[in-house]
Amino acid sequence: MARTILASPTQEVVIGFDQPFVMIGERINPTNRPKFAAELKDGNYWRVVKEAQKQIEAGAQLLDVNVGVPLTDEAKIMSEVITLLQGQVETPLVIDSSVKPALESGLAAYQGRPLVNSVTGEEDSLEFVLPLIKKYDCAVVAISNDDTGISEDPDERFEVAKRIVHRAADYGIKADDVVVDPLVMPVGAVNSAGKDVFRLVRRLRDELGVNTTCGASNVAFGLPNRHAVHNAFLPMLQAAGMTSAILNVYDDGLVPAIKAGDMLAGNDPDCTNWIAINRPKPVPGEGGRRGGSRRGGRRRG
Amino acid sequence: MARTILASPTQEVVIGFDQPFVMIGERINPTNRPKFAAELKDGNYWRVVKEAQKQIEAGAQLLDVNVGVPLTDEAKIMSEVITLLQGQVETPLVIDSSVKPALESGLAAYQGRPLVNSVTGEEDSLEFVLPLIKKYDCAVVAISNDDTGISEDPDERFEVAKRIVHRAADYGIKADDVVVDPLVMPVGAVNSAGKDVFRLVRRLRDELGVNTTCGASNVAFGLPNRHAVHNAFLPMLQAAGMTSAILNVYDDGLVPAIKAGDMLAGNDPDCTNWIAINRPKPVPGEGGRRGGSRRGGRRRG
Repeated sequence: MARTILASPTQEVVIGFDQPFVMIGERINPTNRPKFAAELKDGNYWRVVKEAQKQIEAGAQLLDVNVGVPLTDEAKIMSEVITLLQGQVETPLVIDSSVKPALESGLAAYQGRPLVNSVTGEEDSLEFVLPLIKKYDCAVVAISNDDTGISEDPDERFEVAKRIVHRAADYGIKADDVVVDPLVMPVGAVNSAGKDVFRLVRRLRDELGVNTTCGASNVAFGLPNRHAVHNAFLPMLQAAGMTSAILNVYDDGLVPAIKAGDMLAGNDPDCTNWIAINRPKPVPGEGGRRGGSRRGGRRRG
Repeated sequence: MARTILASPTQEVVIGFDQPFVMIGERINPTNRPKFAAELKDGNYWRVVKEAQKQIEAGAQLLDVNVGVPLTDEAKIMSEVITLLQGQVETPLVIDSSVKPALESGLAAYQGRPLVNSVTGEEDSLEFVLPLIKKYDCAVVAISNDDTGISEDPDERFEVAKRIVHRAADYGIKADDVVVDPLVMPVGAVNSAGKDVFRLVRRLRDELGVNTTCGASNVAFGLPNRHAVHNAFLPMLQAAGMTSAILNVYDDGLVPAIKAGDMLAGNDPDCTNWIAINRPKPVPGEGGRRGGSRRGGRRRG
C-alpha cells in the first residue's frame, strides 16, 4: 500500500491507493505561452502567483512548477519562483525541469518535501537525479523511457519502471517515494493507448506496489472535443488504480468527474466529499433551509 | 471472446469484448410514471413509440421494453407493444418482465433474436426462463441473485452468476447468450459498490468469458448531481470490461462519455466514431469547408 507524502511547511498531501486521487495543476508552465515566457525572462512572476491561486481554488492539491524558457538562467528563476510561491500559497509544489541546475536550485530553495518531476530510465538521468532525491529526502516522478527511447510496448515500459524503482532502492530511496508515469500515448496515433495504460497501471500497482501519475492531456492530442475525452479518461484511470495526474483543473467538468471517480473507486468514505461539493448553495431569504433538509436526508453506508 | 448477437428482421447488434459498448435505452417503462401506466392500461401506445424513436435518435442500440402495470393483462400488452414497435423501428428489443406469461407472449410476438430481461439464480426463474431461451434461440440477462437474496459479497454474486451460466449450458444455451448483470448497489449505501462491481466485471470476463450489463442508474441512488456520477461510472465500467448497460440515453453528457470510453478502451478503431460524432456541423454560407478541412486533418493510427 504505497504512500507518497509531499509537504509544504503547513500542508501535507498523501498520494496513496486508498486516498482521493491527487490532482496536480499543470498551468505554471510557459510552454506555447509567449507572454508568460517573456515575463519569466524579465523576472516578472505575477502570473505564476495568479495561476497558483486559481488552480488551488479549482481543486489542485499539488502545483507543478515549470519555468523552462530557452536562453534564461532557469536555475535562478526556479529558485526565485519556488521561494515566492511558498510565501504566497500553502500547497506543496512539484519541481519540474529537465535542466539539472534548475532541479538542484529548486530543491535547495524548497521548504518541506517536494515531488521532483522527473527522473527517466536514462543512465545520465538516474545518476544525476536519484542522489538529489536521497539528499533532500523527497519523492520523484519516474518516467518509463530509457536510453533506447519510449517503447510502444507497455510491457517494456513496465520493465523500465521496474529498473528505475530498483535503482532508486540502491540509493536508499523507498518505492513509496517513486511515482511512476507509465507514459500515455495519443489514442489518435496508438489506438490501444488507453487500454495499454489501464493494464500498465494495474501491473505497477499490483506487482511493484508504486503510486502512479501521468500527463493526462496527451491522450486526446489531435482529437476533437478533448474535454469530453479527458472527462472519461480520468475516471477510467482511477478505475485502473492510478493515484494522481498532472492536468488542467480548469477543464470543464474534469474536477467533478474525478471526485465522482474517487467515490466510485471506494476512496470517498460515506460519500462525504461528493455530498459536500454538491451541497446546494443556500438561497437568499430561505435561511439555508434547503441545504439543511438535503443534508438531513443523506444516506450513510 | 463472448459475442451476443441480437437482431430485428433488419438490424443486428453485437455485444462483445471488442465491440463498442451497447447502450440499452431504459425509458420504455411505466414505473413511477402514472400517465404512461394509465395509457398502457387503456391500450394507448403512442408514448411507447415516441420513447423508442427518441432513444434511438439519442444513441440507443437496443430498447428495453417493460410494460409492467399492476392489474393489467401484461401478456396482452407486451405482445401488442412488441408487434407495434417492430412495425415502427428497426432496433432490436429487450423483452423485460417479471411476469411469466408476458415473457412468453413477448417472445412469441417478436421477429428476430431478442434479449430477455431476465433470469435470476432462483430455482423457479431458472426452470421457467431457460427453456424459453432455448426454445426461441435468443439471449438472456442473468441477474446474480438467488433464493437467498442479493449478497453484498461480490464473490458470492460471482458464484451465483457461474451457477446460472452452468445451468444455461445444461439447457443447451451457450455462455455467449448469457449476459450477466453483476448487480450494482447504491454507493451511498454500500461504499465499495463501484470498486466491487469493477472487480466482479473483470472476473466475469476473464474467468467465465461472458458479456455483462447492469442497470447503471442504481449506483447514484440518493446522491446529489447524479448525472455527473453516471458520466464517470460508465467509462469506469468500460475500463473494467463491461460490454453493455441499461441506462437513460437522455442523461446530459452520458452518450459522449460512453463514446469516449469506447475509444479509450480500444474499441473505436482509428477513432472513427469519435471523429464522426464530433465533426463540426457545416456553417451556412461556408459551403461545408470547415467540416471538410477538419476531416482532412484527422490522424490515423
